[in-house]
Order: sequence, then structure tokens, then C-alpha cells
Amino acid sequence: MAQLSPVPPPVTTSTTLPRLSPPFCLPLLFPSPLHTFRPFIYHGSTLSLYVPPDIVIRRGKKRELASNCGPCNACYVLTFCCSVFQLLYEEWASYSVFYKYQPIGLVRKYFGEKIGLYFAWLGLYTQMLIPASLVGVIVFLYGCATVDDNIPSMEICHPRNNITMCPLCDRACSYWKLKEACGTARASHLFDNPATVFFSIFMALWAAMFMEHWKRRQMRLNYEWDLTGFEEEEVSALQLESCIPLLFKPTEIAEETTNKWKQTVQSAMAGLKLVLSVSSPRIHTYPTHTTLWKSIGVTFAIVFGVILYRISTKTALHMSNNPTTRSNVRLTVKTTAAIINLVVILILDEVYGAVARWLTVLEVPKTDKSFEERLIFKTFILKFVNAFTPIIYIAFFRGRLVGRPGSYLYVFESYRMEECAHGGCLMELCIQLSITMLGKQLIQNNLFEIGIPKLKKLIRYIKSKRRSFQEEEREKKLQRYETDHFLEPFAGLTPEYMEMIIQFGFVTLFVASFPLAPLFALLNNIIEIRLDAKKFVAELRRPVAARAKDIGIWYNLLRAVAKVAVIINAFVISFTSDFIPRLVYQYMYSPDGSMHGFVNHTLSYFNVSNFQDGKEPMDPQHQVEMCRYKDYREPPWSNTPYVISKEFWAVLAARLAFVIVFQNVVMLMSDIVDWLIPDIPKDISLQIHKEKILMVELFMKEEQGKIQFIDSMIPCGGKEKRNNHAPIARSRSIPHTHSHTHANNF
Amino acid sequence: MAQLSPVPPPVTTSTTLPRLSPPFCLPLLFPSPLHTFRPFIYHGSTLSLYVPPDIVIRRGKKRELASNCGPCNACYVLTFCCSVFQLLYEEWASYSVFYKYQPIGLVRKYFGEKIGLYFAWLGLYTQMLIPASLVGVIVFLYGCATVDDNIPSMEICHPRNNITMCPLCDRACSYWKLKEACGTARASHLFDNPATVFFSIFMALWAAMFMEHWKRRQMRLNYEWDLTGFEEEEVSALQLESCIPLLFKPTEIAEETTNKWKQTVQSAMAGLKLVLSVSSPRIHTYPTHTTLWKSIGVTFAIVFGVILYRISTKTALHMSNNPTTRSNVRLTVKTTAAIINLVVILILDEVYGAVARWLTVLEVPKTDKSFEERLIFKTFILKFVNAFTPIIYIAFFRGRLVGRPGSYLYVFESYRMEECAHGGCLMELCIQLSITMLGKQLIQNNLFEIGIPKLKKLIRYIKSKRRSFQEEEREKKLQRYETDHFLEPFAGLTPEYMEMIIQFGFVTLFVASFPLAPLFALLNNIIEIRLDAKKFVAELRRPVAARAKDIGIWYNLLRAVAKVAVIINAFVISFTSDFIPRLVYQYMYSPDGSMHGFVNHTLSYFNVSNFQDGKEPMDPQHQVEMCRYKDYREPPWSNTPYVISKEFWAVLAARLAFVIVFQNVVMLMSDIVDWLIPDIPKDISLQIHKEKILMVELFMKEEQGKIQFIDSMIPCGGKEKRNNHAPIARSRSIPHTHSHTHANNF
Repeated sequence: MAQLSPVPPPVTTSTTLPRLSPPFCLPLLFPSPLHTFRPFIYHGSTLSLYVPPDIVIRRGKKRELASNCGPCNACYVLTFCCSVFQLLYEEWASYSVFYKYQPIGLVRKYFGEKIGLYFAWLGLYTQMLIPASLVGVIVFLYGCATVDDNIPSMEICHPRNNITMCPLCDRACSYWKLKEACGTARASHLFDNPATVFFSIFMALWAAMFMEHWKRRQMRLNYEWDLTGFEEEEVSALQLESCIPLLFKPTEIAEETTNKWKQTVQSAMAGLKLVLSVSSPRIHTYPTHTTLWKSIGVTFAIVFGVILYRISTKTALHMSNNPTTRSNVRLTVKTTAAIINLVVILILDEVYGAVARWLTVLEVPKTDKSFEERLIFKTFILKFVNAFTPIIYIAFFRGRLVGRPGSYLYVFESYRMEECAHGGCLMELCIQLSITMLGKQLIQNNLFEIGIPKLKKLIRYIKSKRRSFQEEEREKKLQRYETDHFLEPFAGLTPEYMEMIIQFGFVTLFVASFPLAPLFALLNNIIEIRLDAKKFVAELRRPVAARAKDIGIWYNLLRAVAKVAVIINAFVISFTSDFIPRLVYQYMYSPDGSMHGFVNHTLSYFNVSNFQDGKEPMDPQHQVEMCRYKDYREPPWSNTPYVISKEFWAVLAARLAFVIVFQNVVMLMSDIVDWLIPDIPKDISLQIHKEKILMVELFMKEEQGKIQFIDSMIPCGGKEKRNNHAPIARSRSIPHTHSHTHANNF
Repeated sequence: MAQLSPVPPPVTTSTTLPRLSPPFCLPLLFPSPLHTFRPFIYHGSTLSLYVPPDIVIRRGKKRELASNCGPCNACYVLTFCCSVFQLLYEEWASYSVFYKYQPIGLVRKYFGEKIGLYFAWLGLYTQMLIPASLVGVIVFLYGCATVDDNIPSMEICHPRNNITMCPLCDRACSYWKLKEACGTARASHLFDNPATVFFSIFMALWAAMFMEHWKRRQMRLNYEWDLTGFEEEEVSALQLESCIPLLFKPTEIAEETTNKWKQTVQSAMAGLKLVLSVSSPRIHTYPTHTTLWKSIGVTFAIVFGVILYRISTKTALHMSNNPTTRSNVRLTVKTTAAIINLVVILILDEVYGAVARWLTVLEVPKTDKSFEERLIFKTFILKFVNAFTPIIYIAFFRGRLVGRPGSYLYVFESYRMEECAHGGCLMELCIQLSITMLGKQLIQNNLFEIGIPKLKKLIRYIKSKRRSFQEEEREKKLQRYETDHFLEPFAGLTPEYMEMIIQFGFVTLFVASFPLAPLFALLNNIIEIRLDAKKFVAELRRPVAARAKDIGIWYNLLRAVAKVAVIINAFVISFTSDFIPRLVYQYMYSPDGSMHGFVNHTLSYFNVSNFQDGKEPMDPQHQVEMCRYKDYREPPWSNTPYVISKEFWAVLAARLAFVIVFQNVVMLMSDIVDWLIPDIPKDISLQIHKEKILMVELFMKEEQGKIQFIDSMIPCGGKEKRNNHAPIARSRSIPHTHSHTHANNF
């Protein structure tokens, strides 16, 4: 015994570093009374709580899980476990506390840092969505309020407006009056007004601000959770070597950078090969990259399929003679197509999750962390492409490749490419966005996450009814850990983060066309936090607690999404919306500087005698000589009829100039935000500095304590021995700081 | 004595951490024999050198400074100082070793980390300039080689080319033949060919690569120089409080973030105020910002003055009847204007240095570091604006605001705005760039830095000749430190860095128009390194050694310059050069897909009868009906004569689209470079990890040593006392790691 623990007594009382920080909890909406009233000590091994009376009464009610915890104070460990679990169950994993801050400290205590960081991130994201959705709603309301002052839609809806438009499909469709597009024109003003431009700048800055705030919050959590000195174990590739001697040679580990380059070149080559040799079936090298490309190809093919569906259905519906059917054509087609897209997205999402995992397994990554990062990256690429391809098609390609009356573009020689409704494609983009986003959230996130566990529970309940009394009796006798084992295993945080990052994409990428996205995201997330909490607390086996300093690759993916968002929003504003054409008209072409005449200016003339044979409408209804179509082309009476006009190029130049200005201004502003907000909160950096000083003082004190202890031993021998070495030992009593002091004074 | 140093003997032998890294030296070109042959120990207090025989012989030669060092081995400290100094003088601060790596380890040893980092950075920059200048020379040679295959310049120089151009100035100038611009057209091909586009992409990636390499190099130096744990003292604002109680209240320090915001808002407000109220003389708040704006205003005014000089001189020279004068007009005016610009830049640079310092003093920054950063930021802004305003004017504004024949734009009602020569403004941009860059480097960097100290020395020598024998005798008796005091004091590294960052601007910002810039920079820097070395070693008082982990704000400024460079190069390629118009002609307008007819396509027609009265040439020389001018405008016979044509808008759209594509592609590639190259070299991160493990082991060993020592004392008493506290003390023997172990297992 004396051999095992021989340390002098005065030292032991001062080794614990004083941690003065209050118990930390992440703000969600309002502080929960739990955290304001209950001080507890974190870094000890006991959790002492002051429980206010109302909680005590509430705990008196019998709950299924709480009762499973066993009587309180029965034994030391059980009470401890039980009370944290119960607290989490009652004060966190419940919809009734949705307005409260999350007890992040407790979550971390129970689930470990990695899951704690996820919920902290989710909380901050939700919190940051509040101002975004507020501004979004204001922008939407501004659109609603000004819809009657909008001159272009007033002109379209004006009863004396008598503009005849060219037919929307060959033969079956007839000419139509622009007046009919009145509703769409008014609706599209809701999302296509100057406030949208402001809002997308705001959202770009919001994203930058969110990143910065997360960095600060993460730093604060790192400090509170004592992770500042923590480094991930993964770094030590040398230790790893011994574990995987059969798979890799040591030289391979040393050449990791080279490999990275090689892989990139290889993946680029694989992509190139696929592109160059679609017809040749000899691609059997690089299976993983090829499959990745193939999966993306499948997505594109499906989007194309939906486009074809839309075109063909529209033609078919147009052909019907029922006038009510015909008037509802657009809406029906749009909505069904969007729903088909949604279903396809939901199915492919599951498929792609499996594909990404299979591909990553094929790659045989060296470490768990590397496996996770590669899997995440692949899943992200596939799911992102899956979610956003139809939207990008509608935003940037729909209605661009139409051709013009008399020489339309055809796919498969018979289907005409789709046109947009008069108000621009922004309205359709908005419908597609809202259906995809809401559908994904409702079905994938909530229905799947709530419904399937409920269903499983129901099945289990029915089964248990059918079972014999004996078995039931036996089950009751099972220990807590045995019943817990029947729960589903924890599958990692990747799906949770992925869901949120796709949502972040919806919130930032196309926010110019759908200012209500942040609001829907906020509503979803308020439920999502408690849903995830319930899942983690009650429906999954308790995961093995894992340490993490940050959210890892997710931060980089968020940054990437935020960067891409700036460019996409610039393009949506300048190309999808009519913002730039309106400005150009107002300042270059308008005779009186107002918007009057804008609608007329955007419509070109077409002489119906120029229709190709067999393409003219069968049932003209009106006697028409000239019809109009939305494009900037020379009129039939000019020297070069139907050629792209000067206005087209002027508007195009203005659109491109806007993209350049918008992108650079927003990027500059984001950089300024990044530069203005320090990464480490001032109080934390001061605290860390103070603690360093305290640490050194403590060290000195401890050393002195030892010295005093040794001194007290001196009278009985060893005096000469000690004195010989004393001066050297003294100068080395502070190992961290002494090595820096003599570097400059030779 | 026993009270002061009572540490047990077994501990003391193992406290020094083993540093196995070899002596580090930064590669410049080839390794110097000094570093390959002379192993020395860094972290001790002695510097033992193995001196190869040739060095010993060379040291035998008498040198002024070496002899001042006193006899070697006379005393311990003197030898040490003398030998490092002598080595630096001979093996670093000499032009004869320009091809060798710098002995960065010795530089750091003698001057401290801050100056060591400067020379390491300068060395890496110079090294990175080698590939850049190689590629630049190849691009230039490609231009030279293809000058005879360039169809546009062939067409201009063709003897049958008979295009008459409109006069270049009112009344005094006559019509001229396009053939006369043959030389300029051929010359501008050197800098305006497809290789330039490639080169500017290359240079953007080069800049990203340079940043990444510097990060790695810095990390490596941090490790070698034992700075990984070092934090700058400036952090502790609390300690500072006691020093500046009169200036600031403690609350102000806590609110630093708020202040930052406030300052930004204030500076923005100050700028706005200045812009809004130029006429009102009531700006007396915010003196510093106002002065900054005023200084920038002065720069703009001077650039405008030079433009006016150029316009008026040109007109005056055109009026002279001497034909040789007239033919030399362009060249004379261009060159004199560029030289005037250069002189103005040189003078203003000195003025702005003083202005920035004065402004920073007015701001009363709280710490030395803050003072330095503010000063640097201000100086940078002013000097950058000073150096690049004339160049930006030529690149983007010259020749754009000319108007058209018959309705030119006039400044002050009589001076016509300048036009570019036929080959585009790229040629003039190139002349301006080369004169500014070479002139600045030769005059400011070399002449000032070499000449002025030489001059001072000469004056001192003449003075000493005139002085009496007695004084000279007395001077000889002065101690080394007394004569050293007569040297100039060290003024900080700011001017050195500033010089280099402005040069970095020349190398990256307009590289599309001047591919030889990296070569000139390389040649300058090879001299610059040794020049600075000489200055630091022999002509300045030895600076007080300062610690630094990084190059601080300079890194951010470099990043900012590299980012701006991408945008500026995109604009130079698309707007200043004829690259895009050529492409547009080739793919949209050319009848046979070749460049034939491009020159004709870019020239519009003007009917000379449309000249305003008094503006037509006095001395027509030829009988002309139509003259041509470079612009895309409708011909006089169209319905809308002289209105901007469709081609103009098409070319503008193509130009803007190129800017968007170029900027985003290059930024994406830079991000990929950033992501592919890890910030910390693999071997360094492994080393740091290994050392951490070693440290823990050492700590354990030391503790065990103490325990053993105490155990050896046990027989004589204190046994009960120790045993009581032993278990707790044992569990806390590793203070850094123990606090993480129990967090997850409750």
C-alpha cells in the first residue's frame, strides 16, 4: 500500500481547478426554469440538484419510463442515472417545452459531446431562423400589400387589354387572351418584387452570421465542456499502422497528400471517361466513382422523365374538349408533376443512402473518421443533386429552350419544350419549392420519424396480446438493460445532420423565389428538436458517448452551401425573375420613366401565316392575324424577322452585370461580417488566459508543497544529495514557460 | 540555502525535452554548405559549429566588421556573438551567396522570430516566383512567336489596307490611315493572346498555392522554433487596464466587439458625410477618417491632373507642323505621362506614410499591436490606392468615355477625353505597369535603400577627415556598443512588408496584361533579400528581438490582394483586351469562322459632314467622305444613325458572362487548392503528437522519481501523514488528461 500511493498530503487539497462558470444551457426560446433554479456541479462525479416544488409534484405522476427507473435514492448510481434521464425526458424530450431553451449541459452529460454538439447546433440554427422567418414574412406581406400597385399586372388584368397570345401547344391549343394570365401575374408579384432582392442579400448575410455565431458557440461549448485541449485520436496514423498491417503499407500512410491528389485526378478522369464514352461498355475500373456518376445520371434521367410527363399530359389535357378541364390544365399538371417529383425524391433518397454506404465500403477507408467523412460527402452530393435538380431545371432551363412560334424546339420530334406562364417561371419555381420542401419535411422527417416507430410499437403491442401469459410474465422479470436491448440501435447522427443541411439548402439557395422558406423551416425545426429528443431518449438504445470538438465536415458543407447560395440567388433574381427586364425598361426604353407599356415591350409579334404546316391551331376561335409571344425578337415587318433583337442583348448584359455586382457585393459583405465577429468570444479567451495563469500558480504551489514536505524529512538524512541538484531543479519548476525565456537574450 | 532550492536529485536529469529536429534553414535556391556541414544545438545556450576549412581561410581575411568583434575565444559571450554575426555577414548578407538558401535559423537566433519570419516569408515568396516567372516568360515568348500568325494585325499591316480613320483631336489633327497603327497592333498581340487567359488563371492558382505553402512553412517554423504553445501577450486586456486607467474605462474594454461595430458604422458614416457634403465646410468630427478620404481624394485629383496633362500636351504637340514631332507624339506623351505618374507616386508614398502615422497617433490605439495593425491598414490603403489608381484608370476608364465623332465628350468644355491606340488600351496599360513597377523597384527600393546609406557614409567620412586627430583617436577608443549606437535605429518591418505587398499586387492584379511582372519581381527580390540582410546586419542598430507566431495582418492583406486579383484579371481580360470581341466575331459574325474581317467589324462608319462646326480637321490632307472609328455603332445610312448597335450589346453580354465564368471557376479552383493542401505538414503534426506523448511519459517518470525519493525517506517518519492522502494524490498525477476520463462513465 505504501508503495502504491506515496504522495505528500499538502498537495492534494489544491489540485482541482476552480471552475466558476454557471451550468450551461443552450437558449432555444426562453430559459427553462430548470436551469435558472438548479445549480449543479459539472466536473465532479455527483449531480446535486435543487428541485423546485412544481417539478416534485409533477414527478409524483406515474410515467411509464420514469417508473422504470426504480425508486429514487435506492442506491447512489441509480438515483443519479435516473434523475438525469427523467429530467431529459420531462424537460427536453417533450413538445410542451418547445418554447424553452434546451438543457444542452444535461444532454451532453447523458449522450456525450458529439450528440450534445448536434443539439446545440440545431438549437442555434432554429434560433437564428426566427429573425430570418420574421423578415421573410414581412417581405411576403410587402408583396401582398403592393400587389395592387404593380403596373405590369394591372396592365395584364386591365379589361381593355386585348392582346392575343400565340397558342401554347401545336394544333390542339388555340390562341388565348393575355387577360387570362391575370391571376398568375398577380400571384407572381408576391415573390417577384424589389423586396425579394433585399431579402436574398439579407439571407446571404444571415448565413454568414450564422456560421460566425456557430463558431463562437462551439468555442464556448468547447470551453464549458473542457475540450479546449482535446485532440481527436485519429491523428496518430503511426498507432494505426499496427492495426492494419495487412491492408496498407506504411509508405502509403506517409503519402496521404499525394494520394489525395491522385484520387482527385482519378475521380476527374473517371468522370471524363464516363462523359466521353457513354456508348462504350468498357468502364469497369474505378467502380465507386463511376457509380456515383451513374447515380447522378439516374437523377437527371428521372427529372427529364418528369418533364416529358408534364409535356405529354399537358398536350393530352389540352386536347380534351371540356372547357373546365382545359382551364385547370396548368394547375393540375404543375401540381401532379411536383408531387411525382416529390415521390421520386423520397424514394431515391433512400436508395442513394444505401448507394453511398455501399460505395464507401468499397473504398475501404483507413479510419472510422475517414469512413464517416467519405460517406457523408457522397451522401451529401447524391441527396443534394436529388433534391435540387428539378428545382434548378425549373429556375434556369425551363422556358429558355423553347424556340419561337414557327420554329419551336422539339424533343423526340413531337414534344414541344415547356414554356413558363406569363409571370415568369418564378411562380412555378415557388410551387415546386414549397411542395418539395414541405413534402420532404412532413413526409420524410415527421411522418417517417413519428409514424414508423408508432407503427412498430403497435405491432409489438398486438403481438404481445397474442402471446401467452407466461412469456409476458417472463418479460416483466427482465432487467432494465435487457428490455433496453430490444430498442433500435443508434445509427449515427448523419441522417439528422443531412436532413438539416438539405433544409438549410432550401432556406438559402432559392430564398429569392420563396421568402417563406425560413418560416416553414422554423416551424419544422421546433418540432424536430423535440422529436429527435424523444427518439434519442426513449426509442433508441442509448448511444455510446463520443467526444467531438466540432461538427466536423458538416461545417464545411454548410459553408459550401452558403457560398453556392450567393451565386444561385444572383442568377434567380437576374434570370428567373423579371426584376432586371423591368429595370431596363424603366431606365432605357420607357417614354415617361414609368412601368406603363412594359408588358407590351416584352412581347414580340408573330405573323400567323408563318406557322409551319400542321402546327397551326385547328380550332382558332378568333380570326387572328398577329399573335404575341414572350421574347425579345424582331417583328415580322423588320428586315430580319424573328431574329433576336437588340433589346434582348441589352437585357442580357444588364442581367449578367447584376449577377457580377450582386455576387461581389454580397461576398464582400459576408467577408466583412466574418472579419468583424471574432471567432472566440472575448470572455472565453480571457477565461482561458486566466486559467492558464491559475494553472501555473497551482503548479508552483504543488511543487512548493512537495519541497516543504521534503524539507520536513531533511533532519533524518539525504541532505547533501538534495543540495547538489537543487539550483537546476528550481529553474525547471514551470515546464511550460521556461523554455521560452532564454531564446532572445544571448 | 536549503530553503531556497529543495528539489530531489533524480528528477533533474530528465526535464529537458529531447528535440531531435535538425537545424532548420529556409531554402532560397541551393543549400548553403554552411547548413549541410555544421550541426549545432539550438535550444541550449551555446552554439557549437563545425567550420569547414574554406570558411576558416576566408575568415582569415581582414574585414572591417569582423575585426570589430574582438579576438575569438577571448571570452565566452563575445565568441558566441561574434561568430553568429560573422556568419550572417559572410554567408547571408552578401550578394555573392544570392543563389543559396537563407540561414533562417541563424537569422532567428540573432534577430528574433519576428524578423526571422519576415525573411522566411520573403524567401518563400521569391522561391515561388521562380515557376511564375518561368511560365510568364513562356507566355511572352508564345506571344512573340505567334505575332506573325495574328490575322487582325496582319490585316491592319496589309499594304492594301486603305481604311481612313477619324481624327484623334479636334481641328489640329487630320484623318489618318489605319496602316499607321501597324506597329502598335503587332506589339499588343504580345500581351493580348489566348495564352494570357491561361496565365491569369495560372497566377490566381499560384497565389492560392503560395498562401497554402506559407501556412505550412509557418507551421513548420513554429514547430522548429518552439512557438506552438506561444500566445501573444496582447490578449490580456485585464492586465492592460491598470496601465491605461486615465484613457479608458474598464467597460470600454469589455465592449470591444461593440466598439468594432461602432467604429465601422462611424467610418461608413464619415465616408457618407464626406460624399454627401463636399461643398459644406462643416466636417470637423472624425478627423482621421476624413483625412483618409481626403488623401484618397488627393490621389484621384492627381491622376486627373496627369490625364489633363496628357490631353493638353497631345493637342499642343499635334498642332506643331513638324512631321517627326507629330509621329512621335503618342510615344512622347505616353512615356512622359508615365514618368510624371511615377514621380508623383514616389513623392506621395512618402507623404502618405507620414499621413498614416499621424492619423494612427490621433486614434490613440490601446496596445502596440493595435497601433501597428491600424497603421499598417491605413498605410496599405493609401499606398495601394496611390500605386494602382493610374493603372486602374488606364485599364478600365480610358477610352470608354470618349463619345463618338460628332459628339465627343469634353472635360472643361475644351479637352476631349483620351482614346486608346488601335490595339486596345492593353499596350498602354503594359507600358504604365512596367514603368511604375520597374521605376518603383529601382528608385524606391534599390536606389533609396542603397544610395542613401552610401551617401550618409560618404558624408560621415568627409566629416571625419575634417575632424581633428584627437577626436579620431578618442573615437577609436570607443567600445563596440558605443560605435553601434551611431548606427540608424531600427524602424520596424512595416516598410519592408509594404514594399513586398505592393509588388505582390503588381505580380497578381494585372498579370493578364503584363506576364513579365513575376520575372521582374523575382530579379528584384533576389537583390532585395541580400540588400535587406546587409541593412539589418551592418547598417541598423540591432533590433530588440521580438516574438511572433505569424506574419499577422500581412497574411490577411495578401489574401485580400489575391481575391481582388481574380476579379481584376477577369475584367482586364474581358474589357481591356480584345479577347472577347474576337471570340464573339469568330463564333457569331464571321462568315467563314475565321478572324478575317474582324478589324472591319469593330470599326463604325462616320459621315464627315456630321462634324460639329469648328471641330472638323483644318488640314484634311485627303478628300474624305466617310471616316471610321472604333466602336459598335449604327452606320450613318441606318434609320438610327450613330446609335449603339446590337453587336455592342452582344459583345458586352459575352464580356460580362466571361467575367462570371472566370471568377467562379478560378475561385472554385482556389478553394480546391486550399482544401487539398493540409495546413499542417503531416510530419509536423505527427511530431507534435509524439512529443505530447513523450511529455506525458516524462511527467509520469518525474512524479515516480519524486515518489521513489520520498519512499527512500519513509523509514524516518511522516508515514501516517502521507498515507492518508495518497489515493487522491495518485489519481491526480497527470493534470492534463485526468479530467476527461470520467465524463462519460456515470
